Amino acid sequence: MKHISLMGATGSIGTQTLDIIKEHPEEFKLAAMSAGRNIDLARKIIRDFQPDLVSLSEKSSAETLKAEFPGITFTYGHEGLIEVAVYPKSDILVNAVLGSIGLDSTLQAIEEKKTIAIANKETLVTAGHLVMEAAKRNGVMLLPVDSEHSAIFQSLQGEIEKNIERLILTASGGSFRDRSRKELENVTVEEALNHPNWSMGAKITIDSATMMNKGLEVIEAHWLFSMDYSKIDVLLHKESIIHSMVEYHDSSVIAQLGTPDMRVPIQYALTYPDRLPLRTAHRLNLAEIGKLHFAEMDFERFRCLKFAYEAGKAGGSMPAVLNAANEAAVAAFLDGKITFLQIEDFIERALGSHDIISNPSLDEIRETDLETRKYVNSLL
Amino acid sequence: MKHISLMGATGSIGTQTLDIIKEHPEEFKLAAMSAGRNIDLARKIIRDFQPDLVSLSEKSSAETLKAEFPGITFTYGHEGLIEVAVYPKSDILVNAVLGSIGLDSTLQAIEEKKTIAIANKETLVTAGHLVMEAAKRNGVMLLPVDSEHSAIFQSLQGEIEKNIERLILTASGGSFRDRSRKELENVTVEEALNHPNWSMGAKITIDSATMMNKGLEVIEAHWLFSMDYSKIDVLLHKESIIHSMVEYHDSSVIAQLGTPDMRVPIQYALTYPDRLPLRTAHRLNLAEIGKLHFAEMDFERFRCLKFAYEAGKAGGSMPAVLNAANEAAVAAFLDGKITFLQIEDFIERALGSHDIISNPSLDEIRETDLETRKYVNSLL
Repeated sequence: MKHISLMGATGSIGTQTLDIIKEHPEEFKLAAMSAGRNIDLARKIIRDFQPDLVSLSEKSSAETLKAEFPGITFTYGHEGLIEVAVYPKSDILVNAVLGSIGLDSTLQAIEEKKTIAIANKETLVTAGHLVMEAAKRNGVMLLPVDSEHSAIFQSLQGEIEKNIERLILTASGGSFRDRSRKELENVTVEEALNHPNWSMGAKITIDSATMMNKGLEVIEAHWLFSMDYSKIDVLLHKESIIHSMVEYHDSSVIAQLGTPDMRVPIQYALTYPDRLPLRTAHRLNLAEIGKLHFAEMDFERFRCLKFAYEAGKAGGSMPAVLNAANEAAVAAFLDGKITFLQIEDFIERALGSHDIISNPSLDEIRETDLETRKYVNSLL
Repeated sequence: MKHISLMGATGSIGTQTLDIIKEHPEEFKLAAMSAGRNIDLARKIIRDFQPDLVSLSEKSSAETLKAEFPGITFTYGHEGLIEVAVYPKSDILVNAVLGSIGLDSTLQAIEEKKTIAIANKETLVTAGHLVMEAAKRNGVMLLPVDSEHSAIFQSLQGEIEKNIERLILTASGGSFRDRSRKELENVTVEEALNHPNWSMGAKITIDSATMMNKGLEVIEAHWLFSMDYSKIDVLLHKESIIHSMVEYHDSSVIAQLGTPDMRVPIQYALTYPDRLPLRTAHRLNLAEIGKLHFAEMDFERFRCLKFAYEAGKAGGSMPAVLNAANEAAVAAFLDGKITFLQIEDFIERALGSHDIISNPSLDEIRETDLETRKYVNSLL
């Protein structure tokens, strides 16, 4: 029986993690969880899973729920999140929060030698050097939850690192795959939120449309698999059936495939190196699908991907600027304040105006994040 | 440095094995080899690779070459083949002979605890129960050389057997993939020998066109991976880029991909569990290929595949009948004595007229083989 701490229980990855726990009650137990502002869903989860410890973002929410569930320990805020992350009875921490709020707690869980299942991009994008250094020092495994990184991780099993030629991340192309830049000028928020393959949150759906999502994944892959950027490629594959691949130096390519279902990589992170049945998953039927398509990635069509490679290669505080500028710009787009293509422009300007800090501390990363958001908002 | 015994050095798999040895002179040394009637090619190989021991099929050929290479030991015939197989200095035996002549020597090499790289289908198809029992008893590994079985083997690395849901062998469909049964009635030998993806010998190219090649591979996969026939599927995939796949019970599918190049699986068998660079191989470029196609296998269109599943499930001496009837029928087709579709009819009649022997001995397999050939030839 694995005890699980789940940060971000009410989000998309969080609820799918709970589906997996529910499907295997003999294998998994939700020991601790955090939730944000969705108190109704948090209440339902607490009732269904009876965790020992719950952290909410607000003190008032924690007090409300405490009254309803007297047998459960409630906590809140930044400190509460850390308590959930380092909860002694937990064997594994699933970091499924959005944004950079999970960074501190993840680092603390690593110091406590917890295995980390990481679904939160910002942790590795902005502080990959700190996270990987701490993981190495503590002998802690970081298990990817993203479907692409899980595919690469699965394609690396039983293989030797020196034999890797390159990692090939596949990209569906997002909601605007088939549109030219000209056609992107006046797209609406509603159009951008309509992803062809995956059902995800608003921010990540926009990131798919701008290809920034793939850019952040490239940076994550760089850290997770200690791979030089020159050895990480992106391939357009609109069906999202091959989730990603690894090419070895004998020209052999190993790939992981499946129907688009986030529960598969989530479950793999929880069961690794074993697997468990997932009977409710749709089995892949390639004959029914008939054709898989592939095309080269166009870095001029998808400028955010180019920015991500550049920020990744520059290193230091640059990926934190990339991430914060993107978050601020996407928020402005979702609020109707800027156009879709202005997302790229704002990110480009933020990257151009930043003086890079090499090997930044956690405080410097936070400061860079705040300054970048302030800068982007000043452009509105 | 791995010392290699190579049975069938002058054949298609044999010469490609020699290419691999040549590409990595620090890693591999040809220690012993066998050749058939192609003395000119055998002479060239002996000159280039300087093996310690050479066996020819004919005594006269052995004597001719002995005069030319006084420093090398020559032998011949059935006993000679066994000497090559069990050559004490060799670490691995590559069985790349055609037909069932390599069976005895392979079994003897297993008793000598040699690792076996197996490219010879007949060994496992006709005597899988004997070979696997001996391999298990001696703790010997059988490494697949066929691209499909190598793909499955690679897709199994780092995984646990209990988690396998099914094996998916891909099939290009051969030279007549897009023809109806009606259109197959009058096809010529020349048309049948024109395989779209792989350059192979005549027998195996015809076996690709009848789909018997895939049928034999299904039986091989059953033995190599101890997999029930109900868990082995065949999928039409005309580009031969995904060489085969393994589906796990969490719905995740692991696949091995690459350009069609037999040197890749041959080299993997020689380097396993490591890999070595193969710089002369064409790297896979999926964007250039653009599309991969998949379709369900039609067992009425490809009756030989159905016969193979039936013979495999029946077990005992039935797969030996399947194999011998196929060899005799294909030879008759290549000689212009029967039509393409008669290959299937002859196999069906041979299977129908055989009284199954369960758990046959090596002698009973040989007898079944001879009787089946006699039966098929009596139909001509």
